[in-house]
Amino acid sequence: MIDPEEPQTSSFLHHSTRQEPSRNISHFLIGRPLQTADASHQTIGKRIGLAVFASDALSSTAYATQEILVILAGAGTMAFSYVFPISIVIVALLAIVVISYEQIIHAYPNGGGAYIVAYDNLGQLPALVAAAALLIDYILTVSVSVSSGVAQITSAYPQLFEYRVLICLACVVLITVINLRGVKESGTAFAIPSYFFIIIMFIMIGNGLFKLIGGSLGVVVNPPDLEHISNQVTGITAFILLHAFSSGTAALTGVEAISNGITAFNEPRSKNAGITLIWMAVILGLLFTGISFLAREIQTVPSEAETVVSQLGRTIFGGQGFLYLCVIAGTTVILILAANTAFAGFPRLSAMLAQDGFMPRQLTYRGSRLVYSYGIISLGFVASILIIVFQASVTRLIPLYAIGVFLSFTLAQAGMARRWWRSGHYNSEDIKSKHASGLEYEKSWFFKMVSNGFGAICTAIVMCVFAITKFHDGAWFVLILTPILIGIFIFIRRHYTGLAKGLSLEKYGEPPPYLGRHRVLVPISNVHQGTLAALRYARMLSDDVTAVHISIDPGDMEKVRRRWEKWGRGTRLVIVDSPYRLFLEPLLVYIEEILATRQHNETITIVVPHFVPSHRVYDALHMQTSELLRRELLARPGVVITEVPYQIP
Amino acid sequence: MIDPEEPQTSSFLHHSTRQEPSRNISHFLIGRPLQTADASHQTIGKRIGLAVFASDALSSTAYATQEILVILAGAGTMAFSYVFPISIVIVALLAIVVISYEQIIHAYPNGGGAYIVAYDNLGQLPALVAAAALLIDYILTVSVSVSSGVAQITSAYPQLFEYRVLICLACVVLITVINLRGVKESGTAFAIPSYFFIIIMFIMIGNGLFKLIGGSLGVVVNPPDLEHISNQVTGITAFILLHAFSSGTAALTGVEAISNGITAFNEPRSKNAGITLIWMAVILGLLFTGISFLAREIQTVPSEAETVVSQLGRTIFGGQGFLYLCVIAGTTVILILAANTAFAGFPRLSAMLAQDGFMPRQLTYRGSRLVYSYGIISLGFVASILIIVFQASVTRLIPLYAIGVFLSFTLAQAGMARRWWRSGHYNSEDIKSKHASGLEYEKSWFFKMVSNGFGAICTAIVMCVFAITKFHDGAWFVLILTPILIGIFIFIRRHYTGLAKGLSLEKYGEPPPYLGRHRVLVPISNVHQGTLAALRYARMLSDDVTAVHISIDPGDMEKVRRRWEKWGRGTRLVIVDSPYRLFLEPLLVYIEEILATRQHNETITIVVPHFVPSHRVYDALHMQTSELLRRELLARPGVVITEVPYQIP
Repeated sequence: MIDPEEPQTSSFLHHSTRQEPSRNISHFLIGRPLQTADASHQTIGKRIGLAVFASDALSSTAYATQEILVILAGAGTMAFSYVFPISIVIVALLAIVVISYEQIIHAYPNGGGAYIVAYDNLGQLPALVAAAALLIDYILTVSVSVSSGVAQITSAYPQLFEYRVLICLACVVLITVINLRGVKESGTAFAIPSYFFIIIMFIMIGNGLFKLIGGSLGVVVNPPDLEHISNQVTGITAFILLHAFSSGTAALTGVEAISNGITAFNEPRSKNAGITLIWMAVILGLLFTGISFLAREIQTVPSEAETVVSQLGRTIFGGQGFLYLCVIAGTTVILILAANTAFAGFPRLSAMLAQDGFMPRQLTYRGSRLVYSYGIISLGFVASILIIVFQASVTRLIPLYAIGVFLSFTLAQAGMARRWWRSGHYNSEDIKSKHASGLEYEKSWFFKMVSNGFGAICTAIVMCVFAITKFHDGAWFVLILTPILIGIFIFIRRHYTGLAKGLSLEKYGEPPPYLGRHRVLVPISNVHQGTLAALRYARMLSDDVTAVHISIDPGDMEKVRRRWEKWGRGTRLVIVDSPYRLFLEPLLVYIEEILATRQHNETITIVVPHFVPSHRVYDALHMQTSELLRRELLARPGVVITEVPYQIP
Repeated sequence: MIDPEEPQTSSFLHHSTRQEPSRNISHFLIGRPLQTADASHQTIGKRIGLAVFASDALSSTAYATQEILVILAGAGTMAFSYVFPISIVIVALLAIVVISYEQIIHAYPNGGGAYIVAYDNLGQLPALVAAAALLIDYILTVSVSVSSGVAQITSAYPQLFEYRVLICLACVVLITVINLRGVKESGTAFAIPSYFFIIIMFIMIGNGLFKLIGGSLGVVVNPPDLEHISNQVTGITAFILLHAFSSGTAALTGVEAISNGITAFNEPRSKNAGITLIWMAVILGLLFTGISFLAREIQTVPSEAETVVSQLGRTIFGGQGFLYLCVIAGTTVILILAANTAFAGFPRLSAMLAQDGFMPRQLTYRGSRLVYSYGIISLGFVASILIIVFQASVTRLIPLYAIGVFLSFTLAQAGMARRWWRSGHYNSEDIKSKHASGLEYEKSWFFKMVSNGFGAICTAIVMCVFAITKFHDGAWFVLILTPILIGIFIFIRRHYTGLAKGLSLEKYGEPPPYLGRHRVLVPISNVHQGTLAALRYARMLSDDVTAVHISIDPGDMEKVRRRWEKWGRGTRLVIVDSPYRLFLEPLLVYIEEILATRQHNETITIVVPHFVPSHRVYDALHMQTSELLRRELLARPGVVITEVPYQIP
């Protein structure tokens, strides 16, 4: 208890609750800093890690080859043979990016997303650019992956084609609901479908190569119609090849996932994460080149009606048998998993931005489902809109995708290059900025700087090629949206900065004394147990309590008056006439009259009885007077509105 | 002030506020009981009354003829000549209904909608049937009127046809927004377009008859394609004729409007309202038969692409000149006005149902815009859905319409017939029920009973014809929806009855004494001016105040601690560790720990600082801790959550 005689000595108590976090797959994906020693058993090994983090990257093999073919179709079917060389170039790019990210993993063992690396080494604006690009790409990951997943299903069951948008929306709703409820699955829930996909794809590709050597691999039987060929075949131009290349770079999306989630790995975590990254890259490279090579050999045709994976499957396995269905099922499931990872990445990045004041601060509080819900629902909502607008067409969504990924690749690697340069010129007294955390002198800085710098230049070039070749197809939209998002970030930050200044106690002086008059009003519509509970609470707050009844019906008024005589226990009751049968308006006018004569040191509390019905469904049947009053009186100083809940038995 | 020594004497104060109701067109339409003597200048005369109440009824002439033709088309174009005799039968039905409603107007001078008349004379269930039917019809009035209004526009400007659904939705949104803001227009705002419509239609019909007599009236030039003719022409059957008749009865919708709004008329109001009703019926009858007659003469063709009114206009006025455009504009505007009247009728009927406990009680509080909003928004929303589902096609919406109108006609008139029977057998000692209000012996009861009874039988037959002939076209939906709505009404009433029993003070005994312990918790995330305002308020409530800080970041915690020493003024601060960086969960666990040791007579108030930003747009940037806590703790007795608003400068 506080001794009122000695008010200037504050007492502090430390309190530890028995509260334990629920174990949750999102903790792997979110990469929560594991601060407590006993939590290390929650980390994962390389094998599970590959499954958890690779779904996004590997799933892109399901559409990357096809998107190259779509563009090449513009130059006539002869151009299709370029799909393999283009794929080789993309795999080379993959190698460069992976080498670059290996270094990020070792430099940022606590997780190094593009936002963190850019913020740490390049400053605020580049970091915000990376953040905006990533948020857009999380949304597109959902739209593209789900659309592609459903395209696999409709390839096997063409009668479902006309319902594809509906099926996509159902998938998004399902993923959203699962994420809202919280996924309480272990990493093995990811491992089974991921490894199933990898194995079935290798079986398909191996089988295809084996048949090719044996000469028994034919071409696609009954290929779908070629829709994308334009009226005027342009012939093979450099523009077409670059355009096809930039469509194919969608294969690289998701490669950065491991660098974001390093903390989820067993110790030594940087080493484990690094090895997993290389494994992932090797598998991705093999699958992608394998698919592209075989797609050329069997002369697949790009089509909305049947995916390249489906054409490959039924040609290699000779019809739509069991193994074909395994390929379709495996591909669909890994694409849905890839969409699911975006639902973890989006709130995590939002939380980081919120921590730095660029997004609503409530997003920083991790673990509260109620708070995460906003991010999950908005992600699902925006992705659904994209699916509807683009009619679940991967080909039409792809131009918006990947540009953000390459923007963030470029910024992360440029940041690393700058870091190595600083590291080479390290002087512990020079660098006092809070940036470039954990920087120390690095012997091989030059080699590392060149490696990251080369990666940055390559991805920057790809990004420019992408922006130019895809500008008309939709890339312009991303190029406009990114600065708008950055503007919103800065706007929010400015609000918080101004707020902190306004609330600051720096020049506050001595606060006013605690003493002051406290008047309590209790609006009542009737006299019953709920009213009496509110009255009882009001009398606890102050001796100056006034009950207010808005008299709409003279008969009711008499009843209230008679009951109040019996139950009011001396509390004053003011009856306000409402000749026009209004309720809220006369009450507000009465409150305003009291406020008009309010003294400086006086506080007015309005105590409103609030029924808590036995079930939420009844909520709509009760007048939320307190809500209505709050809206009207929020801006008036000196008024506090209190609901006294009364649990209806 | 209350004298604490004498607590059993309650004091009562009567208070009159300066509050005046805003003048509002909805007051005419809502028919608010004008209780204060000085409000009589707000009533209206016959001329304005006709304009205000007739738009719904008169506007139906814009589509009734066309809907008869649509059905007749099923029997081949030869059947079109039946449109005029069918219209004559409908006008005869109109005469019967109007004579019947004349008596309702005189028996219920305070407004006699079908719900009131049925409740008063037939009992609860028939009244609920009438109410459900009317609510459905208000929604359909909006959908049908707006669709027909837009069909007039697209008849004049066929290039807009493909955007008709969008234009309809824009109209509904516009009407909804206008009603949400509150229409502060006088009755003249209704008078101008209504009289304009009446005059331009009479000019058109007069002109047409004149040309017909002179032999210069030709047939429609370039009639639209006949879409509705079915493949197998059935020939003229009784079913087709009855079907066509029931489509045409849509002309009678809106006739009941005056009987609902009698209180808006000048004294002697029943007489004025009655004369206005006859005027309206005469105009309606003339317009409807005139249009049907001329439509036959010029051989109009029913079509979604061009309305009958448009075909008439351009044939009579010889092309799409000024007068043609006047016809189109006048028709469109009166249809939009008709939709607008539903926005007044829907909340009024909801309020009556709420008064009797069949709908959420907050709907009874008139005049508060916030409360009306729910009804207005739901009406606009459901009407929009119907427009989208039926692609703004009047022909496809009509089967759902009118069945409810005739159901309510039948119940109102049956109620009146029963009333006259009672009135003839009146014995002041016999009848003590609160039903049959204001009943007294009536000399001519037999004649009146026969008149209302005949009307009831006629409308009942029409309703059955309607239900049978239109069952497959959509009437089944209304027949299913009506009992569902009635079920909801009864469910809500049951909740309120149970609640009143639960809250009753009958067997409550003596309430517990006011004394009890009051503990106050103040969760703080930081120490600033807002925190201090909350602390100051908390200290006003109780001496037992504990501030709680959830420590997510050890650095922040030290800062809070240091500031608290300076500003906390001796209030105890509990620091709760949150090793998992959660915010809400540790706070809830701490509160639960305190609640677990709560004594019976102890109340715990949680005081939460609440920022009120300078603009609502910033609301999203602030954590609504109190909302989150309230959701979690609402069901726990003994906990009150209070927000202390702090206005950010």
